[in-house]
Amino acid sequence: MGHGLPKTEAAERAHDGAGDAAAVRRDARAGRLTSTTAGRALGFAQANLVILPQRFALDFLTYCQRNPKPCPLVGLSEAGDPALPTLGRDIDVRSDLPAYRVFRDGELVERRTNIAELWREDFVAFALGCSFSWEEALLDEGIPLRHVARAANVSMYRTSIATQPAGPFGGDLVVSMRPFATAHAIRAIQLTSRFPSSHGAPVHFGDPRQIGIADLAQPDYGDPTDVEAGEVPVFWACGVTPQVAIRNAGVDLCITHEPGCMLVTDLPNAGTAVL
Amino acid sequence: MGHGLPKTEAAERAHDGAGDAAAVRRDARAGRLTSTTAGRALGFAQANLVILPQRFALDFLTYCQRNPKPCPLVGLSEAGDPALPTLGRDIDVRSDLPAYRVFRDGELVERRTNIAELWREDFVAFALGCSFSWEEALLDEGIPLRHVARAANVSMYRTSIATQPAGPFGGDLVVSMRPFATAHAIRAIQLTSRFPSSHGAPVHFGDPRQIGIADLAQPDYGDPTDVEAGEVPVFWACGVTPQVAIRNAGVDLCITHEPGCMLVTDLPNAGTAVL
Repeated sequence: MGHGLPKTEAAERAHDGAGDAAAVRRDARAGRLTSTTAGRALGFAQANLVILPQRFALDFLTYCQRNPKPCPLVGLSEAGDPALPTLGRDIDVRSDLPAYRVFRDGELVERRTNIAELWREDFVAFALGCSFSWEEALLDEGIPLRHVARAANVSMYRTSIATQPAGPFGGDLVVSMRPFATAHAIRAIQLTSRFPSSHGAPVHFGDPRQIGIADLAQPDYGDPTDVEAGEVPVFWACGVTPQVAIRNAGVDLCITHEPGCMLVTDLPNAGTAVL
Repeated sequence: MGHGLPKTEAAERAHDGAGDAAAVRRDARAGRLTSTTAGRALGFAQANLVILPQRFALDFLTYCQRNPKPCPLVGLSEAGDPALPTLGRDIDVRSDLPAYRVFRDGELVERRTNIAELWREDFVAFALGCSFSWEEALLDEGIPLRHVARAANVSMYRTSIATQPAGPFGGDLVVSMRPFATAHAIRAIQLTSRFPSSHGAPVHFGDPRQIGIADLAQPDYGDPTDVEAGEVPVFWACGVTPQVAIRNAGVDLCITHEPGCMLVTDLPNAGTAVL
């Protein structure tokens, strides 16, 4: 309503959808939504959030540039400005996510639903793409995702794959794992390749020991996921990787989203694919 | 030789190729090569170069993040360090390009073949992807490129499309134009979509006036290219765009490559495609 798009049916549909995205942010801002954004504003891209003091911004950007699979930068604020106008209308990163994590000197010290009190004029907000974009595309093709079917979190693991360091930021890659029948694994490789801003193609499949994972049944983050006979585990670079890098860097004050409680953007998922 | 790759035939071939890339850089470093890198070390990605004082680095990175089609960041140095280890072995950006442009307060003041004397401890080097990657892929499929056939520079135009500004950086988008028969235009759209780090898919085709180009016969940069009957002009975001942004920003001292005299990397072109 009044945002200047041509009044075609497609634009109306897009408007309705972006309205859904804005409604999720509004609910979070008002404190009515403090839990996961999974399954909300379907069709719209969600993003990981990292907020850092500006003096770390250049090193963190360099870290993202060197590690685009775990850290696909999709938005970046001006210092002190909580808006992300390229990702959505009237976004305020201090309030529009359902929940946040606060790290001091690299340690998780607090969970909050609003960070307005902690905001500083030297804060820069980084939005990093999220696998929700292509999970929806897989489900749309009838390819099942076990963690979604079981309403569980995806399984995540620290690997022995070192990321490319930048300044104080560095550490091992974290991956998410989804099991597939081989035909579905091949389709998943094709489909996720189209979404480089959402971690892109997998980094590994098959034997987890080749990337330093000792026991698939014991994920380092999220819930365990069974791998059934005839299935192959497929591993994607994961947005938890920068949280490890931030801990390693010992940044004095850093704020991230609470896992699963993402920034909902006005960007249609389909529009983030390269092909 | 001794760089740790497995001794397979493929690795040997890759090694031989990277040797070609290194040889081009060595020739430039020694002053034996002071002209275009087009057609050299075929199969290996080339890159645009921008060198700026570190105090502009965060704003310029933000500009690249907001304008990934003209400014696809593929490499980034540490401040004061002329190496780009993620792009190639022993790269020295002060000497390994055939020719450079020096801008003071936004104005082009000098062309040089070596910038070692101008190097400062606060310089940061940015490498941005280049369309040479997919031009080669088009030619490999038998799709002709008129400017290549005529050994001319591609035609480039300033448009009326504003880039997203960041700090002092901003300005209108510069595009390159290549004419194609429609079937080839469609294939070119598909193929270049696979190369988001080399400007990706086109931004426009057809009527140039829709993007503020008054006369195709008078490019703002490069050489004119005829558009023949039955052909459609196709427009891609161009790596000259950041040079416009740098002029607009009035940076005290900035160094870029001389157009056509690119940084030759050790990255195989094919490996830069997302699919």
